[in-house]
Amino acid sequence: MLSNDPSSKKEENNEQNVTGMTIVLFGATGDLAKRKLYPALYNLYIENKMPETFSVIGLGRTPYTDDVFQTKVEQSLRNYSRGPVHDKGLQQFLTSFRYCTFDATETDSYKKLNGLIEQRENELSLPQNRLFYLSVAPSLIDVITSNLTTSGVSQTTGWKRLIVEKPFGSDLASARELNEKLRTAFHEDEIYRIDHYLGKPMVQNLETLILVNPVLDSLFNHQLIANVQITASETVGVESRAPYYDKAGAIRDMVQNHMLQLVMMTALHLPRKAQPEEIRTKKVEIMKALRPIQGETLQDNLIRAQYVEGDVFGIDVPAYREEPGVPQSSMNDTYIAARLFIDNEFWNGIPFYLRTGKRLDKKSTRIVFEFKERPAEIDDYTPEGLAPNLLILEISPNESISLQVNMKNPSTDRFEPSTITFTSNSNNQPEAYEVLLHDAMLGNATFFANWKEVELSWQWIQPLLEAFKENELPLVTYSAGSTGPREARQLLAADHFKWW
Amino acid sequence: MLSNDPSSKKEENNEQNVTGMTIVLFGATGDLAKRKLYPALYNLYIENKMPETFSVIGLGRTPYTDDVFQTKVEQSLRNYSRGPVHDKGLQQFLTSFRYCTFDATETDSYKKLNGLIEQRENELSLPQNRLFYLSVAPSLIDVITSNLTTSGVSQTTGWKRLIVEKPFGSDLASARELNEKLRTAFHEDEIYRIDHYLGKPMVQNLETLILVNPVLDSLFNHQLIANVQITASETVGVESRAPYYDKAGAIRDMVQNHMLQLVMMTALHLPRKAQPEEIRTKKVEIMKALRPIQGETLQDNLIRAQYVEGDVFGIDVPAYREEPGVPQSSMNDTYIAARLFIDNEFWNGIPFYLRTGKRLDKKSTRIVFEFKERPAEIDDYTPEGLAPNLLILEISPNESISLQVNMKNPSTDRFEPSTITFTSNSNNQPEAYEVLLHDAMLGNATFFANWKEVELSWQWIQPLLEAFKENELPLVTYSAGSTGPREARQLLAADHFKWW
Repeated sequence: MLSNDPSSKKEENNEQNVTGMTIVLFGATGDLAKRKLYPALYNLYIENKMPETFSVIGLGRTPYTDDVFQTKVEQSLRNYSRGPVHDKGLQQFLTSFRYCTFDATETDSYKKLNGLIEQRENELSLPQNRLFYLSVAPSLIDVITSNLTTSGVSQTTGWKRLIVEKPFGSDLASARELNEKLRTAFHEDEIYRIDHYLGKPMVQNLETLILVNPVLDSLFNHQLIANVQITASETVGVESRAPYYDKAGAIRDMVQNHMLQLVMMTALHLPRKAQPEEIRTKKVEIMKALRPIQGETLQDNLIRAQYVEGDVFGIDVPAYREEPGVPQSSMNDTYIAARLFIDNEFWNGIPFYLRTGKRLDKKSTRIVFEFKERPAEIDDYTPEGLAPNLLILEISPNESISLQVNMKNPSTDRFEPSTITFTSNSNNQPEAYEVLLHDAMLGNATFFANWKEVELSWQWIQPLLEAFKENELPLVTYSAGSTGPREARQLLAADHFKWW
Repeated sequence: MLSNDPSSKKEENNEQNVTGMTIVLFGATGDLAKRKLYPALYNLYIENKMPETFSVIGLGRTPYTDDVFQTKVEQSLRNYSRGPVHDKGLQQFLTSFRYCTFDATETDSYKKLNGLIEQRENELSLPQNRLFYLSVAPSLIDVITSNLTTSGVSQTTGWKRLIVEKPFGSDLASARELNEKLRTAFHEDEIYRIDHYLGKPMVQNLETLILVNPVLDSLFNHQLIANVQITASETVGVESRAPYYDKAGAIRDMVQNHMLQLVMMTALHLPRKAQPEEIRTKKVEIMKALRPIQGETLQDNLIRAQYVEGDVFGIDVPAYREEPGVPQSSMNDTYIAARLFIDNEFWNGIPFYLRTGKRLDKKSTRIVFEFKERPAEIDDYTPEGLAPNLLILEISPNESISLQVNMKNPSTDRFEPSTITFTSNSNNQPEAYEVLLHDAMLGNATFFANWKEVELSWQWIQPLLEAFKENELPLVTYSAGSTGPREARQLLAADHFKWW
């Protein structure tokens, strides 16, 4: 993929123009930068998706020389790049990186930063396009953004954009507060709230996949769909994140952002290739149509659970309450299942079932469309062995599209459910961060969470948070390594369905 | 699969009851009996689909003892059975076979036959159910059926059924004549006109497959289907059949029977599990709605071709006119392609393209549904690399269902057509003759050609035969081993389609 002349493949891969820019990375010594961001920039670079000239300024409290920083970036590529690291072009890539020792609370730091940005802009003849990437603790976001404005760092003659990582607030009020602070320094269309689930190729391709395949489009039919199931299961436990996770729970860590974004993307159903603005409008409409779960409907539609000890892949693992950093009396949820309804014309009456949790039996993110079975009234033809038809969109760890249909087994002459699968070459897939960084560089915010979506998500989640706090919903348990609590199975069984 | 007690699996495999019977096989020393019928009976036997007691009387001109005949049957199983031949139970199977030296034109032969049938019926306490299988030259059918009546062989206290092989006539008049003769001895519902394409599991399962899979059913939609393509291609040439084939041509050998039966089965589209009678009625309706090709429409809708020399799989093969037994001046068709329209509400405006021929590049029988592409009017979203969606039902040599959709290639980020296939284990598949013999034993004529269908097929074919005879349609050529004549490609290109 590497070519001497980075512009040679530009026309092929890069229909829109990525302009020269400076990427200012707050949290340059952190885990996300190391594992995801540097490899993402490198892979964009070797695929000729980076601008011909660019500058990256890494910021962190630990003092490094540029040389040491560049070596650390190189090390990150060698450890985490999805593809091989080529010697050719590597030095050129690394020399774009500069480091600035930085204290987010000191105005001097911003002056120094501004000087370095401008120096590099002059050296490289770069336009004053600045992409700020905040990979820092939520408590620092406020002070950084206000300092960016007052110090003049974000006062540019080119464009400025801000990428913010989750969590975006911890409830409706704090999210609103955070947003107001950001808005003093950046316009809404300059703010890119990253949700890496939206960077997964399957999620990004969902709409066009349907547009270019009339047979898939015909399956998106209110008459045909019995229910939609969205699963995001992990096998890992709380790991080292207890201080954050025990306050957040699955409800904030997964449901408010990733799961609701997947609901919006799944429910989109646009009749034609849409503009980013139309997609945003439609997503907001879906959130507005999402029936609230509160008061009396809570117990019937939501399962909240925490894992107890068990074994994952044959290895004994402790209960959540025994994990390092978790209080023995923790009432935090590590699993959520929910029945949702979207009260619009298309999805009216079709339940969306969500489930997400840690320490489950497998790692998988997928969307399953279950199709209605043949009505028994038509005739008495109900051969044994039939299962519902399913369209399965596996998002990760591998990307695939499968269709489950009933086929006759020629040796027994009976019907059996068979799954036909298209599996893409997941080795070749761009990482979510790669896709999203590229989008942000292009100024395409389609696959970022806009404020209205975030606000409506928190608004929908808020009654749940309050109910959890007041313990109005029982916290049930499930064994680590299981498929989840029995109550989640009962949630679907009540509707005569099961999880797929 | 073999069990000591043949009744032990009966309930499982054999919902309907197969009664004790005598199978009278005219042509017991012939190729069809050897290659297909004995192995079919044996496989039905080991799958406990034969009646507990049965008698087979083989008839032929060559004199054999029962012992020699049974050895010949055993040899046929060992050479041609689709599954292994088990020692256990084999002798019991073979002792059901008796041989009778027979001259179809001598009344004495029928007396002897009647005596043997009755003797075996008495020995085995069999009811007088008699299944006559005519695997003989067409010229003998007449004399056999009239003698069966006059000799009393077909006068039974049980049921009687007649299985007739193709060809069923050589034009409309001769088919009618043949049928009238059969009808003097058998009722229509006693006549089983075999078309082994109807015995293929994929063809038999077509309707239920759609019934039990709502997602496949939803694709059977007038709005979605662009065209239907039915292909039956062979790589072999005329082989030793020149005396018959040079008179019949592809039009009689394939189109009038197999191809039109596949058209009827494909076009059925029944909303619910149908009774045999409903299927017959619907098939007749389809034949009536099949728009005639004649006069001026002939040249535009039909391609008639003959192969010239070429190579098949790298081996040089002669032109049809150079094949043994074929006259140098033969104007016989070895290839037919046609554009058909079914003028009913569902198929209105959706072309059916048929093609069949010898000495083509591959052996394959399949039905392909091509789906409409997205109308360009909707928007300007037409990414490169798209191909139409296809539903491909492969009937033989292997049975499979595939769906061709457009998927994004993650390494190029472009759409490409990808085929997802369910392939059944074709080793385990029952042979068409097995399925059809079993149906005939059960008295189920669903997958046999009834007279009305046959008559309407000949009626539809008749103008073509006359045009061919008068040379009103050019006989074009194609190279042996090719995909067929250029004119067949032009037939579809005129509609902006291509063969799949």
